[in-house]
Amino acid sequence: MGTLGHLLATNLASFPGEIVPVRNGESLRDVPGEIDLAVVAVPAHAVPAVAAEAAAKGVTAMVVLSGGFAETGEDGARLQAELIANAGATRVIGPNCFGIQNCDLPLNASMAAGLPRGGGGICLVSQSGAYGMAIFTMATDERVRFAKILAPGNTCDVTIAELLGELADDPAAATLCFLLESLADGRAFVERARAVTPTRPVVVVKTGRSEAGARAASSHTAALAADAAIWRGVFRQAGIVEVASGQELLDAARALDGQPLPAGPRVAIITNSGGVSVELADLLADEGLTVPALSSPLQDKIRAMLPAFASPVNPVDITPVWSRFAELYPGLTDLLARSGEVDVVIPVLLQRAALDTATAEGLRDVVATLRTDDIAVPVHVCWVAPRDARPNADLLQDARIPCFEWPARTARAIGHARRYALARERTTPAAPVPARRTGPTSTDPAEAAALLAELGIHT
Amino acid sequence: MGTLGHLLATNLASFPGEIVPVRNGESLRDVPGEIDLAVVAVPAHAVPAVAAEAAAKGVTAMVVLSGGFAETGEDGARLQAELIANAGATRVIGPNCFGIQNCDLPLNASMAAGLPRGGGGICLVSQSGAYGMAIFTMATDERVRFAKILAPGNTCDVTIAELLGELADDPAAATLCFLLESLADGRAFVERARAVTPTRPVVVVKTGRSEAGARAASSHTAALAADAAIWRGVFRQAGIVEVASGQELLDAARALDGQPLPAGPRVAIITNSGGVSVELADLLADEGLTVPALSSPLQDKIRAMLPAFASPVNPVDITPVWSRFAELYPGLTDLLARSGEVDVVIPVLLQRAALDTATAEGLRDVVATLRTDDIAVPVHVCWVAPRDARPNADLLQDARIPCFEWPARTARAIGHARRYALARERTTPAAPVPARRTGPTSTDPAEAAALLAELGIHT
Repeated sequence: MGTLGHLLATNLASFPGEIVPVRNGESLRDVPGEIDLAVVAVPAHAVPAVAAEAAAKGVTAMVVLSGGFAETGEDGARLQAELIANAGATRVIGPNCFGIQNCDLPLNASMAAGLPRGGGGICLVSQSGAYGMAIFTMATDERVRFAKILAPGNTCDVTIAELLGELADDPAAATLCFLLESLADGRAFVERARAVTPTRPVVVVKTGRSEAGARAASSHTAALAADAAIWRGVFRQAGIVEVASGQELLDAARALDGQPLPAGPRVAIITNSGGVSVELADLLADEGLTVPALSSPLQDKIRAMLPAFASPVNPVDITPVWSRFAELYPGLTDLLARSGEVDVVIPVLLQRAALDTATAEGLRDVVATLRTDDIAVPVHVCWVAPRDARPNADLLQDARIPCFEWPARTARAIGHARRYALARERTTPAAPVPARRTGPTSTDPAEAAALLAELGIHT
Repeated sequence: MGTLGHLLATNLASFPGEIVPVRNGESLRDVPGEIDLAVVAVPAHAVPAVAAEAAAKGVTAMVVLSGGFAETGEDGARLQAELIANAGATRVIGPNCFGIQNCDLPLNASMAAGLPRGGGGICLVSQSGAYGMAIFTMATDERVRFAKILAPGNTCDVTIAELLGELADDPAAATLCFLLESLADGRAFVERARAVTPTRPVVVVKTGRSEAGARAASSHTAALAADAAIWRGVFRQAGIVEVASGQELLDAARALDGQPLPAGPRVAIITNSGGVSVELADLLADEGLTVPALSSPLQDKIRAMLPAFASPVNPVDITPVWSRFAELYPGLTDLLARSGEVDVVIPVLLQRAALDTATAEGLRDVVATLRTDDIAVPVHVCWVAPRDARPNADLLQDARIPCFEWPARTARAIGHARRYALARERTTPAAPVPARRTGPTSTDPAEAAALLAELGIHT
């Protein structure tokens, strides 16, 4: 574990609090003072003894990065049981986990070589450590800010539902994202989510829907399709935003965390390419959103700004007037956001518009002014551009204005934001929680159906 | 038009044949010898006179880049009618068009600043010039090779169906892609496609499905949803691969053009992250593909190669054995492709696996060997990696091995390839073509329904 130990020492070096290395042959009990968190990376067979020491020392919590437990078979399961028994009052995150990151402290108690940028409200809980870290990598490339990332591994003690509960009480955690392979404590998770969604979005991707997916996730394969359909209903009822993939999870999080919620379904598109706006309008319609024709007075105002042959109807097509992009994109975004006729504005930055830094700067500034003036209309950029234009997307993304590549991602992400807004309107403050029952785990379809029935959905 | 003239001169400079500039005040008739193609970029009002000169000179074809015709209203429509009348036997591409590109000659008779890399079989016909060029830009970033790109604008003479017919006779055109906003000659297009798809894939994205999309595309809005559903049926019947967006169009083209067709639905996944493979297996199932458990003998062979705790079942999870990636990814790809148990192999290159150049080189070499040995099992890489890893994706893409970013794009693209393979098995060689009728254009739902009925589909 030498390499991992070295990686951990490097990762933890940026933590502003006190770090005490405890090496082979040393004991937690020899550490002076109180220990808030023990990060454990010793071989599996040595972990139960460390847990006993932590319990004796009164350590608040331990993160066990070491693998070799229940995920490897019966011997490992026995070791895991021993770990739990020995830990006593010390809470255990893991084992077999990628670790935890608090981007604001900063604390990188994980195997990831790097910490996402802090200052954002996105929290990610991933049952797959490697995939969670891949999402973080994409986020870093696209300059997304996080609050916390947790890859809790085997969740032998601290469960996914408990993490959701903790994050719900965390003022830094504005947008809660979960990449889930199984939901052993599904009932508790959904109950807690239901209490959270009236105030904060909870976004979930539930993988392992297919037979092979479940096989890979080592969960049981009975009645998978029914299971997926039932969970979909339960999630919707609880106001959870369900997404289809990890990439979509992050896109939804960017839309929800970076911009105000869409107060209605009406979208304005500003474009320099008819073709992209046609496709985008179609894809927005697929998401239940509309691209309404604008009123005559508003069209007149827009027409007065535009060159001949441009269209003020919506999509507003400014045509390829390159020299005026930096004036028209921000000016029209401002006009449309203040018009009262639309709930979302999408500037399509295609090719030369995306390559023009002044256009990106103008959009960034106009969105800042809209917020200062309490105009809560979200602005999402649809980005169709060569890689060379990336610095301008970074400029916008740094201002929390999402730049989604290509119309499909744009439409889907805004669709999720709108669905959450609708769920929030629909959900009443936390309903009485059904009594917790013993019995089969809630991955059992009958159990899930019963839960659904309790929530008022007939299957 | 000075700037456009300059751009054109630059673009045409790379053409190895003879280019004769004809300036204001000069006439086509003064050009010595025969003219194969006239590229026209004079103001709209001057175009009909140029067409008359071209007809008199016996010019084979003219590409009219100039705008200001039917797309601008009644005056423009009259000018366009005059253009057609004057052109006589000279074929007209355009007007109001982005131009045409032949990447192999090379010939860049377009407004695009740059020509895609030649040597590939992909041809793109786009009714939106700007969007077509955006797709080309993405293709350049992702190192896709094209044969031809055509953005034929108002199609006043040479229609989309005629272009399809021409490309069907072009030995360089192996994969035919269409970005269509309207289908004024839809009947002819589908009839020709039906004759082409038994030998070459035809991939279509049809935009303008929604009311706003149709409004932006300036096509009529009656019965749009019915129209879209009917076209979907007609396309399927003709063996056309229909995709939902421009990005998906290019992804399907890359899958179809770069690799052999999947002979069946069985997919093997090789991964170093359980989480990604679970999601990918789900998304493949959504596409009608399977990730079957492998036979015991094959699992034994795989197990012998793998470290402890790795899974030989499928998805084959090699675990994060960084030092062995360059050996295991190519070795397992070779073993699985030759096993007879799967029809597609997907190595998932996630994070460190993607950053490892030796792994990419090994995969490239093993795929080359498979082809030499006539093993026609397609290999598609699922790419989940930071931008820093991009040179390794380029290395694979240069060898025509698609690297699709994230599981959703991977699964969808392979799904399209498999759907085309099935359509090809299903379609008989060109059936008798129904007699062409006069009457309403085929964007009329009743007309489309009648066509559907002729093709044996009841609506």
